[in-house]
Amino acid sequence: MSAGGSPPTGDRQPFGDRLSEHVAQRESQVVLGLDPDPAALWPQAHEAAGDTSRPPAQRAASAVLSHCVSLIDAAGPACVAVKPQLACFERLGAPGREALAETIEHASAQGLLVIADGKRGDIDVSARAYAQSLFGGLDTPFGEVPGLGADAATVNPLMGRDTIAPFLEAAGRRGGGVLLLVRTSNRGAAELQDLPLADDPAEAARGDAAPLWERLATLVGELGEDRVGHSGLADVGAVVGATVPEHLRRARALMPSAVLLLPGVGAQGGRVEDLAPAFAPGRAGGLVSASRSISGAHLSSGGDPADAARAEAERLRVLAWGISA
Amino acid sequence: MSAGGSPPTGDRQPFGDRLSEHVAQRESQVVLGLDPDPAALWPQAHEAAGDTSRPPAQRAASAVLSHCVSLIDAAGPACVAVKPQLACFERLGAPGREALAETIEHASAQGLLVIADGKRGDIDVSARAYAQSLFGGLDTPFGEVPGLGADAATVNPLMGRDTIAPFLEAAGRRGGGVLLLVRTSNRGAAELQDLPLADDPAEAARGDAAPLWERLATLVGELGEDRVGHSGLADVGAVVGATVPEHLRRARALMPSAVLLLPGVGAQGGRVEDLAPAFAPGRAGGLVSASRSISGAHLSSGGDPADAARAEAERLRVLAWGISA
Repeated sequence: MSAGGSPPTGDRQPFGDRLSEHVAQRESQVVLGLDPDPAALWPQAHEAAGDTSRPPAQRAASAVLSHCVSLIDAAGPACVAVKPQLACFERLGAPGREALAETIEHASAQGLLVIADGKRGDIDVSARAYAQSLFGGLDTPFGEVPGLGADAATVNPLMGRDTIAPFLEAAGRRGGGVLLLVRTSNRGAAELQDLPLADDPAEAARGDAAPLWERLATLVGELGEDRVGHSGLADVGAVVGATVPEHLRRARALMPSAVLLLPGVGAQGGRVEDLAPAFAPGRAGGLVSASRSISGAHLSSGGDPADAARAEAERLRVLAWGISA
Repeated sequence: MSAGGSPPTGDRQPFGDRLSEHVAQRESQVVLGLDPDPAALWPQAHEAAGDTSRPPAQRAASAVLSHCVSLIDAAGPACVAVKPQLACFERLGAPGREALAETIEHASAQGLLVIADGKRGDIDVSARAYAQSLFGGLDTPFGEVPGLGADAATVNPLMGRDTIAPFLEAAGRRGGGVLLLVRTSNRGAAELQDLPLADDPAEAARGDAAPLWERLATLVGELGEDRVGHSGLADVGAVVGATVPEHLRRARALMPSAVLLLPGVGAQGGRVEDLAPAFAPGRAGGLVSASRSISGAHLSSGGDPADAARAEAERLRVLAWGISA
């Protein structure tokens, strides 16, 4: 399908095309997860906290920002995007929100795309408010309030497609994407996401009923159909854990044009080597996300945290680029 | 089951008991939803924005705070709790987070419980970070960073029980509760939440397979089993839309000790008169949540916004108290 069918995206190309260009330019499909833990920051970051007369939240947020900037400067060149985990910033209150905005600004200035990982989802008016926060902001009687300017955001689909639409609209207006949770990387994901569905009774009676996650994948496929750019990739993607590579081929079949964000590489046990099916529609079809295995690389390899992070991100980059050739 | 089996809650009683006492004391089961829209604030709130030299986000957040304080002062006396919609504050950036914290502080000072409505859900470490943000904060090398101090929070269960546990832990430590999405109030909720499950093939073949939302309800029931206080109510509750009263009796059977948060009264079409089954375990078994129908009551009734909000909240209070007798 041609890009002519895509919704208007202001002055920007649709997300799939933007991502494709970024991946080609940077020769990377690695997403740098930013999950800053104030108790596990790189040592240099502590200097940015300032003296103890400042409130703890401000000190912690300054240190977190410094850590993220250093991490982006070190590992970013081997990556195509960053993925800030919103929870890690939110727990630092208002200073945390400032640190998040500045982290995003810094990443964008380095040419990295930004995937805001908040897994939001709510009824229409609330979803619209979240989307304003994550993407382009909102106009108020008090003037224009900026959004975080993310290029994509993770969204929880449990509440149904009417709750996803506001995210798609807000993202689409600025060439952004929405990544729906389909099969997550955590151990307990199976409990609900793998439940077999019975809406085809014959299938169910035969015992080969499709699980809930496949229904979520089908939803992603349907939502993406009208939103495929020149690149062959849609504005609607999916989160599929790198920890469940056995589901990747089926996931790809159900979502032929979706960008698959693949978290769980490294600390959670996922291996880049197992992710080949994600790249079927092209090199930008899969995004390999790693957080602690990059920021904490020095803990196992020793040496300078920045050097270790750079090396680990580059190792992942070469691996992913290799299997997606 | 006696409270002896409940987890430790610091110096506080478990959530179910705290809620029961609040409901009895205030003779109310009404939850005041706080969904402030900068474009639809009460007129007086605009004065708090200050002059135009302030950044728009700060002006909007000051006005939103003033609106919420006025709304709480007017309608709060007829309510047992407030339910801030986090999205509405987040979209105002760091000043929005400050306004949220001050709104919560004001509501707590008026003796109202606070239900943080953010519908969060994420893998364990991230869920822990969200829980720190919503409940008691976190200890960092830079000092203690306070949380929002909510009494309860809404949580999205799609990722499974390992992602719910960190919320239960953080809430439980301070006598707080967790309210899991079970059957939401939006029109599109049926799409996924009503999907029939096939894990009992015989049932599926007969065409009477239980839907996903019943499985979510069963999960709430299981998680709550060990967390029931003297009041007969558990720390784990559920969100069940007041827009689907036909499901209430079944929901109550699957979650005999759960606090049911019932959003969707008013603007979304739910009617208090239909909610009786929620109150089976006692008057605090159901919480009737209304937002726009209270804050915007003057739009249909005319008159002063505060007077109209007070009257509408009181009307709901009397209705709910009556049917739960």
